[in-house]
Amino acid sequence: MDSFAPAKATLTIASKNYGSWSMRGWLLCKFAGLDFDEQPVGSDDPSTRAELLLLSPSFLVPALTHDGVKIWDTLAIAEYLSENVPNCTLLPNDRADRAHCRSVSGEMHSGFTNLRSALPMNLKARHPGFKVWVGAQADIERVISIWRECLAKSKGPFLFGDTPTMADAMFAPVVTRFITYDVKLDSDCAAYCQAIMNLPAVKEWIEGALAEPDEVVELDVEF
Amino acid sequence: MDSFAPAKATLTIASKNYGSWSMRGWLLCKFAGLDFDEQPVGSDDPSTRAELLLLSPSFLVPALTHDGVKIWDTLAIAEYLSENVPNCTLLPNDRADRAHCRSVSGEMHSGFTNLRSALPMNLKARHPGFKVWVGAQADIERVISIWRECLAKSKGPFLFGDTPTMADAMFAPVVTRFITYDVKLDSDCAAYCQAIMNLPAVKEWIEGALAEPDEVVELDVEF
Repeated sequence: MDSFAPAKATLTIASKNYGSWSMRGWLLCKFAGLDFDEQPVGSDDPSTRAELLLLSPSFLVPALTHDGVKIWDTLAIAEYLSENVPNCTLLPNDRADRAHCRSVSGEMHSGFTNLRSALPMNLKARHPGFKVWVGAQADIERVISIWRECLAKSKGPFLFGDTPTMADAMFAPVVTRFITYDVKLDSDCAAYCQAIMNLPAVKEWIEGALAEPDEVVELDVEF
Repeated sequence: MDSFAPAKATLTIASKNYGSWSMRGWLLCKFAGLDFDEQPVGSDDPSTRAELLLLSPSFLVPALTHDGVKIWDTLAIAEYLSENVPNCTLLPNDRADRAHCRSVSGEMHSGFTNLRSALPMNLKARHPGFKVWVGAQADIERVISIWRECLAKSKGPFLFGDTPTMADAMFAPVVTRFITYDVKLDSDCAAYCQAIMNLPAVKEWIEGALAEPDEVVELDVEF
């Protein structure tokens, strides 16, 4: 009976231009092949402000509602999709690769605070010759080290081979930051960035970001 | 043949008194029923300093080496154990509970930076009447809200019922902080803290912390 069909999944997101955690959650759903509706929250919504100001996931954005269950936090969304969407390829099959994929995804999830604050995601901006603060440089070097190790093992084009995984979704906003802030990369890492930027889902997200109206995000919270 | 038996698992950890991420990784292994050796790294080791100074997981501490695979990051360790240790109960069985457990674990993993910096874990210390900074108070209120929601649904004694899960391992260092800094709690949350403190694994960790020599951790890194 149609009336018992589960409601379509919904993903709550914030700004496409600035919301790096929203982008991660949205790409995870796309990479998993989930059919979902977007539910944007306004730029004056506290959860949007939390995402943008605190540079970390809030518990409302991004959030996935699927078949009666609400999941917030990007890694929780990734694991949920991996378990519940048929033929989901967000995690590699090999035990060691799965552990590696989760380790680097977890590192992105909890760390790199200097990178996040010094090079905030801003898909509309370009800063040629941007001077990177030394604290963020250490984060950049760790990202590059992670990518080089993954790509050397997998042979690319994505971190764990032919198919984008949760790790690629976690690092995709970093790819855009490296482009926005003109971060110099070796050829392997540059090719990886290009592979991410060529993904239809990434292109679709960026098109949405460029179409957003410009607005001032007021930073009036003390911290 | 004995020579082909896999090597015993090893968990690299930092200070038991100060290392909240090490405590999480160690409790995850204990809750999973894994047989493992500890491998402490010294207080002058860069990875220990990274854990203590940056208040976030470094990629070396805690790290689990198991059957030829190295896993760093606490959530990656939790998921690895859940998949690879027989009869592991780190995740609830119910789909909605699993999603909830991962969501609150992810929130602890990436957030609560004010709580972490204002109320650092220090198992040897007691500060009766400690005055909590308003920024950390919001984090405390969110933790309490998470706990109350879980306990109301599960009926306790742990966040998801009778058995400690990855969420309890993630929040256990917060329990010790609430005791160290004299944070006032309602009776449900106080009972939860007591249930955590009564766990044999938690007692064993704290005994190890109290036995550590006192030492000055020099905070000479600029940030």
